[in-house]
Amino acid sequence: MGRGRPRSVERRRAILDAAAELALGSQTLPTMDAIATRAGVSRTTLYKWWPSSAAVLLEGLLERFHASIEFDDDLPVRAALTAQVDALVHLLRDTPAGRLLRQLMSASITDAATATALLDQWMEPRRHAAIHHLERGMTIGEIRPGTDTALVVDALFAPAYHRLIWGHAPLDDDLAEHVCALVWPAITT
Amino acid sequence: MGRGRPRSVERRRAILDAAAELALGSQTLPTMDAIATRAGVSRTTLYKWWPSSAAVLLEGLLERFHASIEFDDDLPVRAALTAQVDALVHLLRDTPAGRLLRQLMSASITDAATATALLDQWMEPRRHAAIHHLERGMTIGEIRPGTDTALVVDALFAPAYHRLIWGHAPLDDDLAEHVCALVWPAITT
Repeated sequence: MGRGRPRSVERRRAILDAAAELALGSQTLPTMDAIATRAGVSRTTLYKWWPSSAAVLLEGLLERFHASIEFDDDLPVRAALTAQVDALVHLLRDTPAGRLLRQLMSASITDAATATALLDQWMEPRRHAAIHHLERGMTIGEIRPGTDTALVVDALFAPAYHRLIWGHAPLDDDLAEHVCALVWPAITT
Repeated sequence: MGRGRPRSVERRRAILDAAAELALGSQTLPTMDAIATRAGVSRTTLYKWWPSSAAVLLEGLLERFHASIEFDDDLPVRAALTAQVDALVHLLRDTPAGRLLRQLMSASITDAATATALLDQWMEPRRHAAIHHLERGMTIGEIRPGTDTALVVDALFAPAYHRLIWGHAPLDDDLAEHVCALVWPAITT
């Protein structure tokens, strides 16, 4: 009816933007106070919508980097999964998201709110997107029926996180392609 | 000539034992002071041999869990690698090493000494053992020549660390076998 989006939706989005920018632009994890100040809202408003600073900023990151897990069902399954792993590699290597994710993973070990937000807002949407492609692959006959999708997703994505955390080997330009090539013969029809 | 091991070797081993036991038995990472007290030596002695508490305790863990990365060149390569991944899964899931490793990985993000000790005393010996088997496999014709051993090792071992850190999926009894099965068709001759 020409009313546009409700005001609360725009306010919510402004807060998520503020949280993401603050987190990506500073060396430490932002507090609820810092996010409230940056977004120009009260702490009470923030706590009405999110239980923790980790929850706000991870939802902000999910919005910000949503393109890296968009479904593209026109691509062959292997190309779609390679693109998703490649987007992760670039995100972790070429943007402040890599440093930020390391900080969040570190914090998650002692802070349950951070652990929950990381799983809900970072890991699960990414796993869901990848599992979607594998299931699509089983439906259209590109992927072997009965494939353990949870395991395949871990095998495809874990090496990038592993190299980010340990730093023992680089996040190469061809990492995504090579990881997919390593797994593919076992799951292709 | 019947003299046994030098005294310093035994003293060193006693310190490593003390560090490993302290780390595995408490909820926080031990300080140099705590390790010195437990081992009955001075801080000066400790710092003469090791640069940081992380270095002592990770060398202690390496001694303690050395069996989990022993070479066994009589096994077929796939069996040897499956056994090594399986030993890691059990170590991370069924012993206090899992909790301890999460603490160390968390600390390593802000503490360079911990990061160095983790790489030198945990990751590199394990990677070296696995790469040894892959190279042996290329020599005896079980593994495809030109295989990217660094990538294969990450693909085999990263899922276990990934599940330890994120907690999104269990460290199953059959994880090692299934991960090896997923990678094998791409690397076997």
